[in-house]
Amino acid sequence: MKLGAIEAGGTKFVCGIGTEDGTVIERTSFPTTTPEETMAQVFQFFEGKGVEAIGAGFFGPIDPVIGSPTYGSITTTPKPYWSNFNVVNALKGRFDVPVGFDTDVNGAALGEYTLGAAQGLDSCLYITIGTGVGAGAVVGGKLVHGLSHPEMGHILVRRHPDDKYEGTCPYHKDCLEGLAAGPSLGKRWGTAGAELTPDHPAWDMEAYYLAQALMNYVLILSPQRIVMGGGVMKQPQLFPLVRTKLQELLNGYVPHPSLSEGIEQYIVPPQLGDNAGLCGALALGKLAAEEA
Amino acid sequence: MKLGAIEAGGTKFVCGIGTEDGTVIERTSFPTTTPEETMAQVFQFFEGKGVEAIGAGFFGPIDPVIGSPTYGSITTTPKPYWSNFNVVNALKGRFDVPVGFDTDVNGAALGEYTLGAAQGLDSCLYITIGTGVGAGAVVGGKLVHGLSHPEMGHILVRRHPDDKYEGTCPYHKDCLEGLAAGPSLGKRWGTAGAELTPDHPAWDMEAYYLAQALMNYVLILSPQRIVMGGGVMKQPQLFPLVRTKLQELLNGYVPHPSLSEGIEQYIVPPQLGDNAGLCGALALGKLAAEEA
Repeated sequence: MKLGAIEAGGTKFVCGIGTEDGTVIERTSFPTTTPEETMAQVFQFFEGKGVEAIGAGFFGPIDPVIGSPTYGSITTTPKPYWSNFNVVNALKGRFDVPVGFDTDVNGAALGEYTLGAAQGLDSCLYITIGTGVGAGAVVGGKLVHGLSHPEMGHILVRRHPDDKYEGTCPYHKDCLEGLAAGPSLGKRWGTAGAELTPDHPAWDMEAYYLAQALMNYVLILSPQRIVMGGGVMKQPQLFPLVRTKLQELLNGYVPHPSLSEGIEQYIVPPQLGDNAGLCGALALGKLAAEEA
Repeated sequence: MKLGAIEAGGTKFVCGIGTEDGTVIERTSFPTTTPEETMAQVFQFFEGKGVEAIGAGFFGPIDPVIGSPTYGSITTTPKPYWSNFNVVNALKGRFDVPVGFDTDVNGAALGEYTLGAAQGLDSCLYITIGTGVGAGAVVGGKLVHGLSHPEMGHILVRRHPDDKYEGTCPYHKDCLEGLAAGPSLGKRWGTAGAELTPDHPAWDMEAYYLAQALMNYVLILSPQRIVMGGGVMKQPQLFPLVRTKLQELLNGYVPHPSLSEGIEQYIVPPQLGDNAGLCGALALGKLAAEEA
């Protein structure tokens, strides 16, 4: 099946043509400007390519709830011109194919679930720790939606006793994103995360926050695997620190092998690498085609 | 449809016969002793009643994951004799009908979803605050399972600056259950919760913990309604306190009417009242019959 994919960030759009196994045949990218200008470039890219469905992973907040009056639109983004723009209506007005629409992080979660590190399971959680913190989850084979999409990057965590940094989140100051996203690392230690040595105390504190988040995700969603990606997780020393701290926090409360001897296969890096965004969008397109 | 229902607690079993609309025709109860003795009483009650399916909501932890090698059993309970006892095998060995099996709190969540305060929606969360704290969730019309069932009562919360009480949880000390369950109220204030006046500062502190939990549930699961039950929630002053504190914590981050002008219809008491456990078990039985 030939699928169209859109990975839409606040800075740039990446568009691709690919297949349902995640192979990207062709790609392009251009800056995010106004909806009119940027969508015209999207239309031009897909025109005449014969795609059978399009998947779109977008910067949020969006309305991904099928049946809702504003389904398919970006809602209250601070990004100029895009508030209330309906992506699904725009795409369907131009191409007569099924359109899958979700947040970029939900797309990545679906990508890892169908094509990457969580294949063959019934549920998973994908978290990305980079400029911000975002997470998406698959439960019973479906992306989690309800009122809207999850915003798991903003859950509350306990402050580390040695942490004097106030936090970067404009809404909550010291929520998970406020304390653990890449920019917080740089501001707290006066040096960008990528420049800190692997034995710097920054990583222990970072793992302290991430393990708390994972504890709450495990207790609330009970996912069968947790995939951790994003720029901050390129520091491989974080994985063993997070695994150990999660076990300490749970203290044996959830008696499952994945949380004891199997934890190295439970908390894992992504498999889709630099194609994660486009693969996620392909997975959204494939799902839309199947559900059409 | 005539359904059998079992509400199994660590102290007593309640068994009932009812219909899929939640009507309980007949009920009985007996103490929880050994599996042999107690299940013999269950068998005797259902014998010859012509039930078409049985739903069982059990004290946990259990394995509710269909396809798992230990599906249908109680796993590592401290309750003597019941560890590794397989409830589903026992019931199916005696009655040739579909059996639905889940935790008591997941049963109650399904009950409120199909028959109670969250009817007609696609998702909901049910939380009970009593001797312990437990919660179950429906997402996309299905109860959340993954590795196992959720254990949402044990998530981490931030300690109130005025709270010197260490917490009751034997695993985590001051997790949500450790700080907010009924027994913690009694130990913290030296007076049982039911004896404290509605303007006592205990309720403000209680709401501080419950609102944190709800914030994390909203950000992780995005449920379309939250139903709050259990002995502690019989204090009606808690509802407005929890609603207001949740709004303060979210600080407008999730732009949905249910979290602003619609919050009184978003955070609500249960509708099933004293029949919640049996109605939940009936709902589990109905679901098992539908999926058989």
